[in-house]
Formats: sequence, C-alpha cells, structure tokens
Amino acid sequence: MPILPIDYCPSCGSQTKLHIPKGDNRERAVCGACDTIHYQNPKIVAGALPVWQDKILLCKRAIEPRYGTWTLPAGFMENGETVEQGAKRETREEAEAELVNLSIYTMLSIPRISQVYIIFRADLTGPDAFGVGAESLETALFAEHEIPWNEISFPMIERSLRYYFKDRERGHFGVYAEDM
Amino acid sequence: MPILPIDYCPSCGSQTKLHIPKGDNRERAVCGACDTIHYQNPKIVAGALPVWQDKILLCKRAIEPRYGTWTLPAGFMENGETVEQGAKRETREEAEAELVNLSIYTMLSIPRISQVYIIFRADLTGPDAFGVGAESLETALFAEHEIPWNEISFPMIERSLRYYFKDRERGHFGVYAEDM
Repeated sequence: MPILPIDYCPSCGSQTKLHIPKGDNRERAVCGACDTIHYQNPKIVAGALPVWQDKILLCKRAIEPRYGTWTLPAGFMENGETVEQGAKRETREEAEAELVNLSIYTMLSIPRISQVYIIFRADLTGPDAFGVGAESLETALFAEHEIPWNEISFPMIERSLRYYFKDRERGHFGVYAEDM
Repeated sequence: MPILPIDYCPSCGSQTKLHIPKGDNRERAVCGACDTIHYQNPKIVAGALPVWQDKILLCKRAIEPRYGTWTLPAGFMENGETVEQGAKRETREEAEAELVNLSIYTMLSIPRISQVYIIFRADLTGPDAFGVGAESLETALFAEHEIPWNEISFPMIERSLRYYFKDRERGHFGVYAEDM
C-alpha cells in the first residue's frame, strides 16, 4: 500500500497546501478552504507465527507483492480492533486457523515505508486445524529444516522465524523491538 | 485526534462512496471518479517511561486533552521514523531529555479510538538532564510514593506506571501486550 499524498481535503474536497501548522514542526496537508489539518502516520502490520509442536505454519501468497512466496499470516491492522485481534483475523483470513496462547514476539519498524510489523507467537489447535484462505495458494506446516528460506516473502518474516528457532533452541523466548 | 471520515477523494477531490471493494470484506471510502480506495488504520502513540535511579520523569500537560494532568512523554508516531525514534522525539519535545537504554515495555491497544500505545522503559542521563518542552507546563522526577495517581492523564499511562513499580519490586521486567 503506497503512501498517497493528500492533494485534496478529505473533509470538503478543496485543494490542500503543505505547510507547517502553528505549534507543529512538520509539513502537513492543510485545507485551503476549511483549514483542517490532515495527518499521515505509520501503519501497523499485525501477524502471527503459528506453531504446532515442532512446526510452523506458512502461507504461500496468492496476492502481490511477492506472489508465490511463503509468509507468516499478517496484514494491515484495522480500525476498531486490537493488535492481537488483527493477528488472529489475518490468520483466519489467510489460513482458516484459530490461534490460541498469543504472546507478543517481534516489533519491527520499517521507517522507509512507514510500517511497523508486530508479530505474535501463537499455538494452532491441532495438526489439521488450518485451511487455505482466499489470499493464499497453499498453506503448510514446516519443521525448521524444511523452511524455504530462499522463498520467504519479506525480511521481517525471515527475521521473526530466525529468532524463533534460535530462541527455541536456547529454551527462552525474548521480545524483539528492532528496525529494518 | 478524532478519526475524520473521507468524504472527498484525497487524490482527485471528487466525492467518495462507502462500499466493500472486490476481494475485501469491509466498507472503504472509494472515489466515485478515479476509483482509488482510501484506507484508514489505527495510529501508534509512541512514548517512554524515563527513569533516573528510583524516580520517574512525568510531564504536566500544557495541551488538551487533559490539560494540567501528569503524563509520560508520548505522542503520535510520524511517518519515516521507528517506534523507538518516535518515543525519543516525543521525550525531547515534551521534556527536553535524551533517552538511553530503551526497552519495549507496554503495548496497549485501545480499539474504541483506534490507537495503540507503545511505551519503552528508558534511562535519563542525569538527575537534571531534562527541561520543560513547549507542550508541558512543568516536568519533574517522582519517586513511587510521590506519583500523583489521581492526576494521571490517561489509563494507558497509569497502567504502564503500575506495571513498572510492581516489576521493579519483584526484580524482573516483563513486556505487556494488552487491551484497554
């Protein structure tokens, strides 16, 4: 989702101008007619790392970008939901799975595209408790040695998976707030 | 910051209509002329719990809402920055302090207003290493028994402070992802 400039006022339809409002220190799109200031802020991508015993659920993307590569279920958080609800909804939509025991795991800022990925560790409820959602070509459980590292969709997903296997081996799960 | 409806297309200025785009499952503001879909998503409030020895830095708000109450430095994350940079910038703006040793601490979703508070624990660099920023009436260090619990700005701030003192007493700091 590219960041679209606000050339016209979403409230009244008049042209906006970029200027720094009084008391602010950044340029904003300000309406030339009704003076409304329109802010643009980073978006949260909420996702999950779904676990069944020693395996992780991945989804093969049926949508662009990165069509055909493997990802963890994740997508833009919606208004009116919690981050955890967003992660559960995305997992339902992409993999028809209900998650339990969610724990915050990675929070990865990508300032270049003004996004923050927030991924939860979570459990599946059974070895077959998932399907193939509309945005996926296929879904499957992978043991560590089966992960298709060269076909993972995004570096945020790869980093979360690498932390998971490292933490599992050392027997302790951290929480990682980092930048990409 | 209330959530403004998108009545006019920010890209071309024509009127929008609310409908569910193909492949989606929620109503979006879609332009009647150029067909651009305009999404609205939750905003991140990035903040810090600044510590000097046994004391916490609080800021008395010089702005609405909750003018005159005490808060932790926090504010809307901006495009192009990381969550941590947002927390450091807000602390600079509200309390003229430079933070070090940031650790993610609380992530509190408030679905009613489509916001997510993300607060870092952090250290001040000295007992006088802060000032009074433009959005603050005053700033001060508080020991636990000095915290003005009845004059704290928001429940997200109070909850973060309560966790901090509880964790400090038991000698172990968790990371808390919760809903309000």
